[in-house]
Amino acid sequence: MTELDDITIDAFRAQVARGESEDLAWWHACQARIKALEPDVQAWEYLMPPTSTEILPGPGQLLRGVPVGIKDILDTAEMPTTWGTGGYLVSPSAVVDAAVVTLLKRQGAMPLGKTVSTEFAYFTPGKTRNPQDLSRTPGGSSSGSAAAVAAGMVPLALGTQTAGSIIRPASYCGIFGFKPTVNTVSFSGIKALAPSMDTLGWFARHIEDICTTFTALTRSDAIDALPDLSGIRVGLRNLPGDSSLEPDVTQAVSSTARYLEKAGARVFALPLDARYDDLVMHHQVVLAYEAAQTLASEFQQHGEDMGARLVELIEQGLATSYADYRASLLAAEQCKQMLSRVFADEVDVILAASAPGVAPQGLDATGDPIYCRAWTLLGVPCLNLPLNKGQAGLPVGVQLIADRWQDERLLSIARTLVATTA
Amino acid sequence: MTELDDITIDAFRAQVARGESEDLAWWHACQARIKALEPDVQAWEYLMPPTSTEILPGPGQLLRGVPVGIKDILDTAEMPTTWGTGGYLVSPSAVVDAAVVTLLKRQGAMPLGKTVSTEFAYFTPGKTRNPQDLSRTPGGSSSGSAAAVAAGMVPLALGTQTAGSIIRPASYCGIFGFKPTVNTVSFSGIKALAPSMDTLGWFARHIEDICTTFTALTRSDAIDALPDLSGIRVGLRNLPGDSSLEPDVTQAVSSTARYLEKAGARVFALPLDARYDDLVMHHQVVLAYEAAQTLASEFQQHGEDMGARLVELIEQGLATSYADYRASLLAAEQCKQMLSRVFADEVDVILAASAPGVAPQGLDATGDPIYCRAWTLLGVPCLNLPLNKGQAGLPVGVQLIADRWQDERLLSIARTLVATTA
Repeated sequence: MTELDDITIDAFRAQVARGESEDLAWWHACQARIKALEPDVQAWEYLMPPTSTEILPGPGQLLRGVPVGIKDILDTAEMPTTWGTGGYLVSPSAVVDAAVVTLLKRQGAMPLGKTVSTEFAYFTPGKTRNPQDLSRTPGGSSSGSAAAVAAGMVPLALGTQTAGSIIRPASYCGIFGFKPTVNTVSFSGIKALAPSMDTLGWFARHIEDICTTFTALTRSDAIDALPDLSGIRVGLRNLPGDSSLEPDVTQAVSSTARYLEKAGARVFALPLDARYDDLVMHHQVVLAYEAAQTLASEFQQHGEDMGARLVELIEQGLATSYADYRASLLAAEQCKQMLSRVFADEVDVILAASAPGVAPQGLDATGDPIYCRAWTLLGVPCLNLPLNKGQAGLPVGVQLIADRWQDERLLSIARTLVATTA
Repeated sequence: MTELDDITIDAFRAQVARGESEDLAWWHACQARIKALEPDVQAWEYLMPPTSTEILPGPGQLLRGVPVGIKDILDTAEMPTTWGTGGYLVSPSAVVDAAVVTLLKRQGAMPLGKTVSTEFAYFTPGKTRNPQDLSRTPGGSSSGSAAAVAAGMVPLALGTQTAGSIIRPASYCGIFGFKPTVNTVSFSGIKALAPSMDTLGWFARHIEDICTTFTALTRSDAIDALPDLSGIRVGLRNLPGDSSLEPDVTQAVSSTARYLEKAGARVFALPLDARYDDLVMHHQVVLAYEAAQTLASEFQQHGEDMGARLVELIEQGLATSYADYRASLLAAEQCKQMLSRVFADEVDVILAASAPGVAPQGLDATGDPIYCRAWTLLGVPCLNLPLNKGQAGLPVGVQLIADRWQDERLLSIARTLVATTA
């Protein structure tokens, strides 16, 4: 089991191919780990019976025998879905799995259970604790998926991000979290929050597993490391640029910049004008307007059961005019086009803070997504790098960002960087 | 009942306010019309019991007492959903309504039933006939919604468009059909086909009702007619520019151009280079790749039950590489940006063919969406204008197109045009 904690998906597949491991070895190891740690971590909303060991047959499966956690806002035909509602809205079983669940199964992956989500992937927390320090939040909204991966309960778990719901928990829990370019993986069968930004992504402890999962889901070519990072231009810029950061984060960014330079990259401050800083505000306008529309039925039926912050968001959305919504979308569109020129001419990737600091104390809130809002509105791929520690030895992530549809290049650069720090 | 056939939503609301009509008058008139015509037209997959006359209370409802048809790929809590599968996949009732169904109900609208869709909104036809000629297709995929509105069974019905599923049936049936800017109305609770293009829209017999519904769903300001169209620049361009058109369509475009000029607009041929014509091919690549992902679960469970053309699409998608998909998306992105400059500098709206001709004979196919594919990929708002007749007195529509998020302006121009032709 210790060995399976450290192994990559590709290495496991090779072991099985050589007859050194069984298809179900990882599944059983994960079951044991969950039994030991779940009473503390509380990552799971529902667990499949340990005897449900069916693997879909198929040729060349990249994820064969890989246990995977499914965020509980994804429809599942064989598991209930609660959307983080704590029970006021429950589906015992969906008519069909969310599309991505079938894509994973086709590649041989084994859904192990549903991981805790905040309420409809917004702020009201579930029961999950941060495995690095049980008195702290794991972040949200993909709380259970991040905690389960960090605790070694599962090598891979699905999350979604509409503000900072993958990058922030990955940073707090000390793992890789990847939000691809918006609309890379179908959101069909996943509860939407703000459809123009909702993005499916995933968590893993190894950058190699983030890459393999990308290829498994998109059928891209395999993503390899480069010889080194010479010629790679890295721009430093947080969005927003003027908000407060703990010294831990500033240090993590500097430390990662040094790793990048050591690997051959050129790192420099990237000037982006104030219109980019406004994107944080525009994100909130778009999120509120779209959430009020998108969760109309849930609010109509269960508004009285909903958490205060979700009600506040929906009411803010109902008070937002179509003209203001459109203005925010158009401002984002303009920045997307400007940023594409920046990526074409000036930088290959951007290095930025993932969160304002380490995971906050307490389980009554999931931390602040402020450093993810603008990037999510821009639709760009973002990867949390778990390379640094801050106060009390807690993880502090930073994110690496590329232009839309440059996911393969982003992951390839990250893979190279991680190899040089190993 | 004859009167309610000709009345607009705004006029009905005024009648009710003056005490000249009852809230439920339209509902009962529609029930009678359906009883008379449904045996011939076959527009409905499911009808609510005529006694289900609840109207959600609320202040200032724009659609109070308006019966509405719901395309059968939308989730409904009080009605079954079959997604045009003919029964191999059925949900007796959804956990919650699709978001837009609640948005309509909040405005006082009354869902009257589920309208026939082709299989998962692709090509395999349902039972519906064209009310203008029962031997012809109503078009698809929103077959039942278009036919029900054209037959006067309902003043308003929801459709969706991923290729030409609103504009084409509206053209074939002789009604207004509106596809807003992509992502204007939440797709939550609607079965996706190709998420980057799937767009919710609606059909009506009156342009005023198209406008009122836009305001009801988006909470935009009311959309009024302009004094006239002087100063409005109209560019003529079909996409693709080189495909075959029946003389009926060429005539309909010329005739509409004359109406526009009579209203004061300036109409001229718009030069767009060959990259725009390639969008038809790129649309097919994006549709296939995304459909194969998005319908993964349905294909896994029911591939053997699916119609040949849907299987063909999914298999084409499975054979499409991520690199080719991305290249098509990026080509579309480039054209979107170029077209925004064209709309900013050269034209206010574009006038184009909706379909290659009048509704084809037979019920075994739903016609060709070729003249809608590029515009749908571009995400721009499109409105079918039912102002012309072709062979055998059958309707021939043309579409009016604006830049993304210029929906209000497009509808305002159309409203002005229609007023001058009345």
